[in-house]
Amino acid sequence: MLHTIQDRPDRRQPDQLRPISFQRSFTRYAEGSVLVSFGETRVLCNASVEQRVPPFMRGQGRGWVTAEYSMLPRATHTRSMREASSGKVSGRTQEIQRLIGRSLRAVTDLGSMGEITVQLDCDVLQADGGTRTASISGAYVALHDALSGLVKKGQLKKMPLLDSVSAISVGIVKGYPVLDLNYEEDSIAEVDMNFVITGSGRFVEVQGTAEEIPFSAAELDVMRDLALVGCANLKQLQQVALAD
Amino acid sequence: MLHTIQDRPDRRQPDQLRPISFQRSFTRYAEGSVLVSFGETRVLCNASVEQRVPPFMRGQGRGWVTAEYSMLPRATHTRSMREASSGKVSGRTQEIQRLIGRSLRAVTDLGSMGEITVQLDCDVLQADGGTRTASISGAYVALHDALSGLVKKGQLKKMPLLDSVSAISVGIVKGYPVLDLNYEEDSIAEVDMNFVITGSGRFVEVQGTAEEIPFSAAELDVMRDLALVGCANLKQLQQVALAD
Amino acid sequence: MLHTIQDRPDRRQPDQLRPISFQRSFTRYAEGSVLVSFGETRVLCNASVEQRVPPFMRGQGRGWVTAEYSMLPRATHTRSMREASSGKVSGRTQEIQRLIGRSLRAVTDLGSMGEITVQLDCDVLQADGGTRTASISGAYVALHDALSGLVKKGQLKKMPLLDSVSAISVGIVKGYPVLDLNYEEDSIAEVDMNFVITGSGRFVEVQGTAEEIPFSAAELDVMRDLALVGCANLKQLQQVALAD
Amino acid sequence: MLHTIQDRPDRRQPDQLRPISFQRSFTRYAEGSVLVSFGETRVLCNASVEQRVPPFMRGQGRGWVTAEYSMLPRATHTRSMREASSGKVSGRTQEIQRLIGRSLRAVTDLGSMGEITVQLDCDVLQADGGTRTASISGAYVALHDALSGLVKKGQLKKMPLLDSVSAISVGIVKGYPVLDLNYEEDSIAEVDMNFVITGSGRFVEVQGTAEEIPFSAAELDVMRDLALVGCANLKQLQQVALAD
Amino acid sequence: MLHTIQDRPDRRQPDQLRPISFQRSFTRYAEGSVLVSFGETRVLCNASVEQRVPPFMRGQGRGWVTAEYSMLPRATHTRSMREASSGKVSGRTQEIQRLIGRSLRAVTDLGSMGEITVQLDCDVLQADGGTRTASISGAYVALHDALSGLVKKGQLKKMPLLDSVSAISVGIVKGYPVLDLNYEEDSIAEVDMNFVITGSGRFVEVQGTAEEIPFSAAELDVMRDLALVGCANLKQLQQVALAD
Amino acid sequence: MLHTIQDRPDRRQPDQLRPISFQRSFTRYAEGSVLVSFGETRVLCNASVEQRVPPFMRGQGRGWVTAEYSMLPRATHTRSMREASSGKVSGRTQEIQRLIGRSLRAVTDLGSMGEITVQLDCDVLQADGGTRTASISGAYVALHDALSGLVKKGQLKKMPLLDSVSAISVGIVKGYPVLDLNYEEDSIAEVDMNFVITGSGRFVEVQGTAEEIPFSAAELDVMRDLALVGCANLKQLQQVALAD
Repeated sequence: MLHTIQDRPDRRQPDQLRPISFQRSFTRYAEGSVLVSFGETRVLCNASVEQRVPPFMRGQGRGWVTAEYSMLPRATHTRSMREASSGKVSGRTQEIQRLIGRSLRAVTDLGSMGEITVQLDCDVLQADGGTRTASISGAYVALHDALSGLVKKGQLKKMPLLDSVSAISVGIVKGYPVLDLNYEEDSIAEVDMNFVITGSGRFVEVQGTAEEIPFSAAELDVMRDLALVGCANLKQLQQVALAD
Repeated sequence: MLHTIQDRPDRRQPDQLRPISFQRSFTRYAEGSVLVSFGETRVLCNASVEQRVPPFMRGQGRGWVTAEYSMLPRATHTRSMREASSGKVSGRTQEIQRLIGRSLRAVTDLGSMGEITVQLDCDVLQADGGTRTASISGAYVALHDALSGLVKKGQLKKMPLLDSVSAISVGIVKGYPVLDLNYEEDSIAEVDMNFVITGSGRFVEVQGTAEEIPFSAAELDVMRDLALVGCANLKQLQQVALAD
Repeated sequence: MLHTIQDRPDRRQPDQLRPISFQRSFTRYAEGSVLVSFGETRVLCNASVEQRVPPFMRGQGRGWVTAEYSMLPRATHTRSMREASSGKVSGRTQEIQRLIGRSLRAVTDLGSMGEITVQLDCDVLQADGGTRTASISGAYVALHDALSGLVKKGQLKKMPLLDSVSAISVGIVKGYPVLDLNYEEDSIAEVDMNFVITGSGRFVEVQGTAEEIPFSAAELDVMRDLALVGCANLKQLQQVALAD
Repeated sequence: MLHTIQDRPDRRQPDQLRPISFQRSFTRYAEGSVLVSFGETRVLCNASVEQRVPPFMRGQGRGWVTAEYSMLPRATHTRSMREASSGKVSGRTQEIQRLIGRSLRAVTDLGSMGEITVQLDCDVLQADGGTRTASISGAYVALHDALSGLVKKGQLKKMPLLDSVSAISVGIVKGYPVLDLNYEEDSIAEVDMNFVITGSGRFVEVQGTAEEIPFSAAELDVMRDLALVGCANLKQLQQVALAD
Repeated sequence: MLHTIQDRPDRRQPDQLRPISFQRSFTRYAEGSVLVSFGETRVLCNASVEQRVPPFMRGQGRGWVTAEYSMLPRATHTRSMREASSGKVSGRTQEIQRLIGRSLRAVTDLGSMGEITVQLDCDVLQADGGTRTASISGAYVALHDALSGLVKKGQLKKMPLLDSVSAISVGIVKGYPVLDLNYEEDSIAEVDMNFVITGSGRFVEVQGTAEEIPFSAAELDVMRDLALVGCANLKQLQQVALAD
Repeated sequence: MLHTIQDRPDRRQPDQLRPISFQRSFTRYAEGSVLVSFGETRVLCNASVEQRVPPFMRGQGRGWVTAEYSMLPRATHTRSMREASSGKVSGRTQEIQRLIGRSLRAVTDLGSMGEITVQLDCDVLQADGGTRTASISGAYVALHDALSGLVKKGQLKKMPLLDSVSAISVGIVKGYPVLDLNYEEDSIAEVDMNFVITGSGRFVEVQGTAEEIPFSAAELDVMRDLALVGCANLKQLQQVALAD
């Protein structure tokens, strides 16, 4: 059922990821700093450790992981206005940063961290589709680096990570399901889904939207399976990056 | 596999909806005005027809459907601050109102409406879980009434609706999948999903979040099937209400 | 001097109120919840008890009563923008909610309440003139219910209410003074006044504005007397509602 | 009934105004610029002529008069925060600037002005009670100067003023009605009223608030009469100032 | 090299200040209140003493001096919008108020003040060029008065001022360097500089901008020398004002 | 007079720049995209061409160059809050972005560009002192690339640049003047100056602040000369980068 190589703009197989890279220690000051690339999409994921938790969590002895997401104004083909200039964080931005935060908390043992916060900043330097999935996948590596640092310094006895996590987009383009859409594919997709999946292959988040044509249960199954393949590959790439 | 009646706080079957009602013409001025109840959750869905479209759509001869969502401060057990007082629309609110708008546009033939906007206002008078699914299901009825009015007045030649649409929540509570969670169930659910499904049984939106424990592909399948049952029932209740 | 029945759009006598109702326990969670109707004007008045006072009052052992007022976007003939979307609470809204708060505090013995706040939320579901007078009159009933609840629970020894309070509009329409204007009358009135009057017939607030033609001392006297009649009737209707 | 001279902090008679002055041409650029003093209260009232009207009035051939009001941070005994710093115009400020605008429009023949706006800026340099009544009384003189200038330049054929207007406060202090309260009296008054009255002795605005004790119809009558006396005196002082 | 008297619009010598005055005790409540005039530019500089420091300075035993700057809407030839109405403090305003604060702190011995703040409010009543230099020069006198008051009251043992400070503008107009530009000169200047200089002739701030034509090192030297002359004169005028 | 090598934390000579690099085409979509490094300070300068000018310039046939500046939250040793989250652009940010815009406009022949805008976005990825001088120096290269592109495409007949421009910081640290301070030096400097200088050695902006000790005319001269040396070197490095 999956269509052949000539159909995708960059000649990828339907179930093939774009070239993926995780460049650690990209900046000097952050406790974890990863420049993640999903093809031409590049996101700088910085993890900052703060020795406190938000007010609503104080006194419980538990930690917190949260995220902010932003695009540089000229990450895209035409310049977009800065959210600081408009004085408002857009609905899309809030939706994405809430998603990143939930995804990372799902694999973190907050109860064993003590009252610290790891703040993930995902700043998109260049956008070619899949910025939220790249952000989650890169932020996991930055979070791992930040927490490793706390273990090395002796502040934590062991890594408070229950599993790894990555994310990938799947869509239906011209009637065919494909993995990891770039901007050109994303802008014409009939269906657009994002999956967040743990290293053990379980689902943390499933988000699907029919942009043009509602989809069937059978199509949902195919997209789910493509995502499982994609995240299994991402998990290995994360492991390789962290082993360096 | 589905658990028995004694497990749910209101003794419902796992696949049983709460008492549902759609009260049309609840206020006088709106072109469509529906008070929808999903059990104790009550949302006033008002549809307003405006003879213009947003700036980014002008001159294309197409229509627009959009939504705003809000809770009265004391819709909930404890009072929450008004968003007008804080000067900000929260991320959660924006996420929900974008979802409602997308869901209704998915079944509307915008190209046959001319340059008019139908604005849906979903104001939650009382919240007991499922406010976004009640909003979508009620807003569809209000949209139908507003568009019928335009047909009756001769502004539209035929109804620009391609299908009906409704929404329902599904979750995993204490290990068991259940349909249409109330607040008590929602607050302890391990997994929380929302499905938006057309009258013909196709998916417009799928949103699932593992609040506590990531879920398996098999669990995703069971929840998908519960949602299909729930929305098939909601479709019939919408038809009955519109036939009055 | 008062004009005859045929002059008012709904054939009321000059000193006749519209049909008034107070529907208690309209929602489940608020400590007092009253849907008040002045003709087609419908306002949901919810009273919330909070076990604290604002910062400027802390440590004095006194209570506080305050109010917020809002209209649903489609309470009116044409839809108005949400104040949460504009990020600003309008001057008119602030003026009204300050008025409601002052009016209720005037009959409350704040010194005998202890450090609690009763927050009144007046949300207009449908507007046909007189929303601020309906809000005050309904909020009094909701406040009474909330305070009764505290007496029943033993948190208060006796009701901290010094008197009842209600409010009514008076205006000069086509040269004649009339009581309780609906929207049609209000929009053409030469003079528009609002009176807030206690159960014992004393004035808490007097607000009069000459929209078109400044008015004389004699006209002020006639309007004052109409208001005294109107509020005497409202007092009785409040008593009946509270006796149920 | 009126109390004797020893009761007021500055030994005034109950019906006596503080020393009043209107200093015209206080700044160079405004078309009308009046520094008004009511005792130690000093307000700079600048009138600016703009050759346009607000969007909602365009194309009707009518003029507009509007006002803004502000206090310098250290106009008062203790410094208050600038509204520009807080990013919000307070409810009190909005209430006052709406009142000033309505009061001046009530005596202006907007229909004979053409599409121009006169913008009144009332900036309180020093506050000792009665800032809103001083603002209205001074703004009338500034408006007169701005409109006279347009007549002299030939843009207007005749003065578009139907009458003069002034404003005064009245209150009940320690049980006695008094005129033109200063801050010391205002802060302990049981009742606080503001009257806006035309040169011909008719009412434009009546605003009364029982801060402590609701007031009777008889007390309302006495306060009304004091206000008529005060505004008759203010009218003469305005005429003298404009005759210079 | 300096041009002759006929070149300046008000026939001043190139190195001649406008008429300068410092009117102390302009308002009653501020601990220091100075109306400073640089020709037609008039700024009210009020100093307020607060018995606390900002959060970031608490517990260090040191004082703080800070400033806010604002223009009345009609200080200028055409009315400008209030920053409170726009909800934003402009970049220009922030730049100026930061400059005023830094300039005053440079001559204040914060370490000997204890934990108090002196807040300077510089409100421009009329603007004819040089509002920031007039503000700094006047604010110094107001600060001196406020601190003298604390010495007189015994809260401070000695004046915590290390030196005096004043500020002046210099520019290149039609090719010639001139001192203390008024608005007419400022609006056509090729180069615009502001110097903040202590009583002992040392520089606190130097700010120069080539509006039209970048300037040479030689021109910088001439402007620096003009500023030293101007501030030496301002220092004497400040001393005379403080000796009254 | 200049101190010897052992005094600076990175062993530089007093008049020695840090390692400088200009990496062109850092991102794909911007018309000019330069990653500039001044030692560990790294700023991404993107130039975007827009075929319109701001409203206040329309219809004059002239172009515009403007800038925005921002730091990533973790560009610094400790994380700082995003300005989009606080809803305000800080005074410091506004001051810097106004400086960058003025500096580039000083060397651009706006009259020969037609009605286009070049928008420079300077986003600091890593901050180690001198972010504003790096931004100006890098933005010049990005502006050059964007304008070259317009010449190549035939939209402009010739380059509308009158000269090159660069910027450098100078300071007095422990009593000695030094060039191009890093963060460690900047945080203890007694005096901090920034110079913006054209390729022909003329001044566009001079900004000096005595953080601790006011400085003499002689010290100003030494700092001015250091800046001239630094910018002469930067000019050559810009030329080399543009020649690649």
